[in-house]
Amino acid sequence: MGLHRVVEPAGVLPQAAWRLDARPEIAANEVRIRVERLNLDAASFRQLFDKHGGDGAAVRAEVLEIISTRGKMQNPVTGSGGMLIGTVEEAGRRSPLGLKSGERVATLVSLTLTPLVVTDGLARWDGRSEQVPCDGWAILFARSVAAVLPQDLDPQLSLAVLDVCGAPALTARVVSRYVAERAVDGPPVTVAVIGGAGKSGSLSLAAARQAGAGRTVGVVPVAAERDALTAARLCDAVAMADARDPVALSTAVTSALGVPADVTVVCVDVPGCEHGAVLATADGGTVIFFSMATSFSAAALGAEGLAADVTMLVGNGYVPGHAELALGLLRADPGVRGLFEARLAAD
Amino acid sequence: MGLHRVVEPAGVLPQAAWRLDARPEIAANEVRIRVERLNLDAASFRQLFDKHGGDGAAVRAEVLEIISTRGKMQNPVTGSGGMLIGTVEEAGRRSPLGLKSGERVATLVSLTLTPLVVTDGLARWDGRSEQVPCDGWAILFARSVAAVLPQDLDPQLSLAVLDVCGAPALTARVVSRYVAERAVDGPPVTVAVIGGAGKSGSLSLAAARQAGAGRTVGVVPVAAERDALTAARLCDAVAMADARDPVALSTAVTSALGVPADVTVVCVDVPGCEHGAVLATADGGTVIFFSMATSFSAAALGAEGLAADVTMLVGNGYVPGHAELALGLLRADPGVRGLFEARLAAD
Repeated sequence: MGLHRVVEPAGVLPQAAWRLDARPEIAANEVRIRVERLNLDAASFRQLFDKHGGDGAAVRAEVLEIISTRGKMQNPVTGSGGMLIGTVEEAGRRSPLGLKSGERVATLVSLTLTPLVVTDGLARWDGRSEQVPCDGWAILFARSVAAVLPQDLDPQLSLAVLDVCGAPALTARVVSRYVAERAVDGPPVTVAVIGGAGKSGSLSLAAARQAGAGRTVGVVPVAAERDALTAARLCDAVAMADARDPVALSTAVTSALGVPADVTVVCVDVPGCEHGAVLATADGGTVIFFSMATSFSAAALGAEGLAADVTMLVGNGYVPGHAELALGLLRADPGVRGLFEARLAAD
Repeated sequence: MGLHRVVEPAGVLPQAAWRLDARPEIAANEVRIRVERLNLDAASFRQLFDKHGGDGAAVRAEVLEIISTRGKMQNPVTGSGGMLIGTVEEAGRRSPLGLKSGERVATLVSLTLTPLVVTDGLARWDGRSEQVPCDGWAILFARSVAAVLPQDLDPQLSLAVLDVCGAPALTARVVSRYVAERAVDGPPVTVAVIGGAGKSGSLSLAAARQAGAGRTVGVVPVAAERDALTAARLCDAVAMADARDPVALSTAVTSALGVPADVTVVCVDVPGCEHGAVLATADGGTVIFFSMATSFSAAALGAEGLAADVTMLVGNGYVPGHAELALGLLRADPGVRGLFEARLAAD
């Protein structure tokens, strides 16, 4: 768990720590990665970008300052981090991760708990994109998750998929349960994905369909995303609504599905989507919150205040088999792949 | 849903609103309550009490200021409210709540979305307890939940139970599912309740046992609570640990149960318990967060960082039948009743 890397405060786990010890010498159960790229969490990058009014040099300076001060990349406002890719430099003899020197990997645990040192001053990054070319090192603990990058896919494409691979895996698990519980003659399982054209959203739509959802809707905020998602044919309906407007969101979902959603998946990184998601969900349904902008108390009090009998899940980024499932969806579904490639091309 | 009572910002639900219109005239589907007592949320009261260094007059002044400014009682820091008891003064002819004038009720939706006016300046409250004697009025919407106070129980006792009745109901639902899924010959379902001696904690322990949990542990922070919970005979084991220390908490739970918990219920209103709860929970298990001090991102990133395959639930205060279930546990279990009565006597 990396407790020995926690400098302060003592006793907490690395994710909760203010500062980590990022020294390059590894313990027998650790792995050192030579880092080539960071992929900042979308909410974190947006906060930094907005704070500095789009001034890339200032964003870069703050990211450098955070990493050197804290020994990890964790945005102090959003609390979120991101992930990285790099090459295994040294694997301790007791590391259970099965990695070998020279393998190119992506870390599937957050940067918020990964000891990190940057050695190039982020000189190749303009501070205007979530993708951060980078030289330095990072440490993986025994209880970490890392995926060897597949040979058949562009590394940036793999990284973009792996970054959000928990969302389709958990969506598939939850939708499968509803499909199994519903009688053969029962109504089809309905799924709404808020932010359906994004990375986690498009994969979640594909996962819901593969898991047996009978009718799916992707909700997007603007016409360009509506058109892109419609062209990708990932869902039965595409609706446009502001997810922060509870009545507009629930009306859009219910109109598109004919009924409220059995499963609502929140994949947009803006605050204030909790109530709309609850309202859009059927009694006995489930809301899965993947956005780091989710407010715990807004969700809890919102459902209570609406007397809504919905199960609300904190989106756990770890589900066994999540990397393989997400990469499989990308390979199998040209619609998903098209959205990802268009997004990477635009970055 | 009370949208017509939202003054600002427009379009949000009452819980998310900055200010509500608390005028006494009711719509045809509303109910006006003559308020006799507010029960502030524990996290909210603690924040106010600590902020003012225990100065009751200052706490009272701030609560009055919040209510008069916002038209509801919602702590701006914790985001939480509480509940109230009072008497039905007028029920609109189209209200679906089934309440009649003169009935004494407790509201089971949060004060954070309940239009409220205080008319006595909280003159009878010393600002040093969560229980606030109060004169004024409150408005219930069509989609609200209120319980008529039972005749056989002291109203303050009922209020204390109803305040947390979502916790035992959701705990019972989740534990029942594990009991049903586990084969007849399978190992017993294990349950840990963090903060087991408190209101929601003791009810959750009783609910878990009633739902068929095979072995339960209540975790408490201090010796006095350990002794009280042991005497109440609500659980198979009582453990003492600081819930903010992940290693200490998970060690305490695993030692007491012999294995990690299948279901971990977090009922303590202090920040920083997310990682310990995740660590204390078995693979395939479920953590239910009832504390309003829960950090969404700490839970999500913590589970991911620990590669922990646990389901994490946002504790929804509304589960159908929750009031009856909680009051039934209090009536049936002398241990629960004893803890509640001791707590009320100490207040």
